[in-house]
Amino acid sequence: MTPTIGVFDSGFGGLTVLRALIERLPQASFAFLGDTARLPYGSKSRRTIARYAAQSAQFLVREQGAEFLVIACNTASALALDAIQDAVPVPVLGVIEPGAAAARAASHTGEVLVIATDATVQSHAYATACRAHGLRALEKACPLLVPLVEEGWCSLPDSDEAFAAQAVRRGGPPPQVAVTAEVVRIYLDELNAEAAEAGLKPDTLVLGCTHYPLLRSLIERTVPPGMTVIDSAEATAEAALALFNGQHEAEERSPSAQDPTEIRCFATDSVEKFERLGSRFLRRPTGKVELVDLGG
Amino acid sequence: MTPTIGVFDSGFGGLTVLRALIERLPQASFAFLGDTARLPYGSKSRRTIARYAAQSAQFLVREQGAEFLVIACNTASALALDAIQDAVPVPVLGVIEPGAAAARAASHTGEVLVIATDATVQSHAYATACRAHGLRALEKACPLLVPLVEEGWCSLPDSDEAFAAQAVRRGGPPPQVAVTAEVVRIYLDELNAEAAEAGLKPDTLVLGCTHYPLLRSLIERTVPPGMTVIDSAEATAEAALALFNGQHEAEERSPSAQDPTEIRCFATDSVEKFERLGSRFLRRPTGKVELVDLGG
Repeated sequence: MTPTIGVFDSGFGGLTVLRALIERLPQASFAFLGDTARLPYGSKSRRTIARYAAQSAQFLVREQGAEFLVIACNTASALALDAIQDAVPVPVLGVIEPGAAAARAASHTGEVLVIATDATVQSHAYATACRAHGLRALEKACPLLVPLVEEGWCSLPDSDEAFAAQAVRRGGPPPQVAVTAEVVRIYLDELNAEAAEAGLKPDTLVLGCTHYPLLRSLIERTVPPGMTVIDSAEATAEAALALFNGQHEAEERSPSAQDPTEIRCFATDSVEKFERLGSRFLRRPTGKVELVDLGG
Repeated sequence: MTPTIGVFDSGFGGLTVLRALIERLPQASFAFLGDTARLPYGSKSRRTIARYAAQSAQFLVREQGAEFLVIACNTASALALDAIQDAVPVPVLGVIEPGAAAARAASHTGEVLVIATDATVQSHAYATACRAHGLRALEKACPLLVPLVEEGWCSLPDSDEAFAAQAVRRGGPPPQVAVTAEVVRIYLDELNAEAAEAGLKPDTLVLGCTHYPLLRSLIERTVPPGMTVIDSAEATAEAALALFNGQHEAEERSPSAQDPTEIRCFATDSVEKFERLGSRFLRRPTGKVELVDLGG
């Protein structure tokens, strides 16, 4: 029997974490829940977020049999990790601590930059986690990046091949991608100017939002030479792999490489949008997304 | 005693409608409610939107004494106008019908374009209202425009004077405004191409979102020559003026020009963001925004 890993996000950005997990744990089954009816979490109180996240975690554990949970949502990781750990009897991993740990491993100057959503920045969860690792972090909210990714302006049309062909034909990227590149440049210029003003010498940039991995190549082309880009989705998958292999050591020694990965996706609303955009985050079809009702 | 007009939106975009109302009815008092804790309405079901909007309308009528309501929210106007009219004993005006009527007055070809949010376009409320006026409407969702306005990338820094000075100094608009101009161009190019493909000769563009008036000058510089831009905030304020003057004819004949307009603003969450961004929409300080609790 393959173990089931539950992955939870308020939306479907967390599918980038699921993708990174699948690459590392092809022998596991996955149940992904996007609490899309109640997003965005970012504007809600800590108590409400904790209640929603605990309900979502209980669904994955009790109804989908998850033996291990990954909270692929920065807001829930920042504000509700304790509440989720109290609500379910299985190990729970968030995205923030692995991102900070990866920054610690990458940085030589001990000074790092973090880009994230407004809510994540306001929580200062990354700055706090980085400080615990002896790092100084400068955080910046980049509110336009999520809508640009959701509009698909990171690589148009949907497949990379078609995008590449179009770019060659036109002699450059499509204007939509050029807009996103310019937005990335403006945000990073502002952040680098703030860092210089504060006398910092950052050498590492943490992508503190599960939507941002879709912008990774644009971002890598924009950062100053020598700056390492940390994808917290990848960092979280690495941390999950280590924890999970510790838990399932006996089983892991004899994986059945023939077992296809089983992925079940659930959403509390917007199943259509989930199916349409989800495959872009997951880089494979999401399959049929099931609608679930977690109540108010 | 000055009559009170209640103005309601799920967020604070509706402050553009309030601004247009204040210009036309300086003798009235205004109570504005932004149901910010429960936005966005666009992703919620019709029944939920109707319940939220009815509660908001009742707050404005029962607790703030509004004698007249303007629903300055496209989603609520599209999906819940009947429910609101049933919930309160005062006249209720939405934004969609005035926008369609203004398009009818402006268009010679009988073919119009509408830009709006995803939720408004999916409801086809403008197409339906336009059809009732004998117009053919082609609608397009422009999901990036609201985040661009909320990020303040329509005129940076906040005041127009500083923006103009900066533009002169740099020999052009700041890069943030150039990004927004390019996004507007891409969306309108796509819409005009769709119209041409459908054999339409549109001569009017309706701004079907209460955030878009802040982009009006950018949009007017981008539309083909001869195309009229209809601001549904302005159209709604005109319709409200006509209705309101009909109701308050005796009082209107002797307005006391010395009475300053009284504006009370309420929000169900995010008071800080409301105060920070609201003045940009209202083009005057919002004053202290009061937090109200409408329950779940």
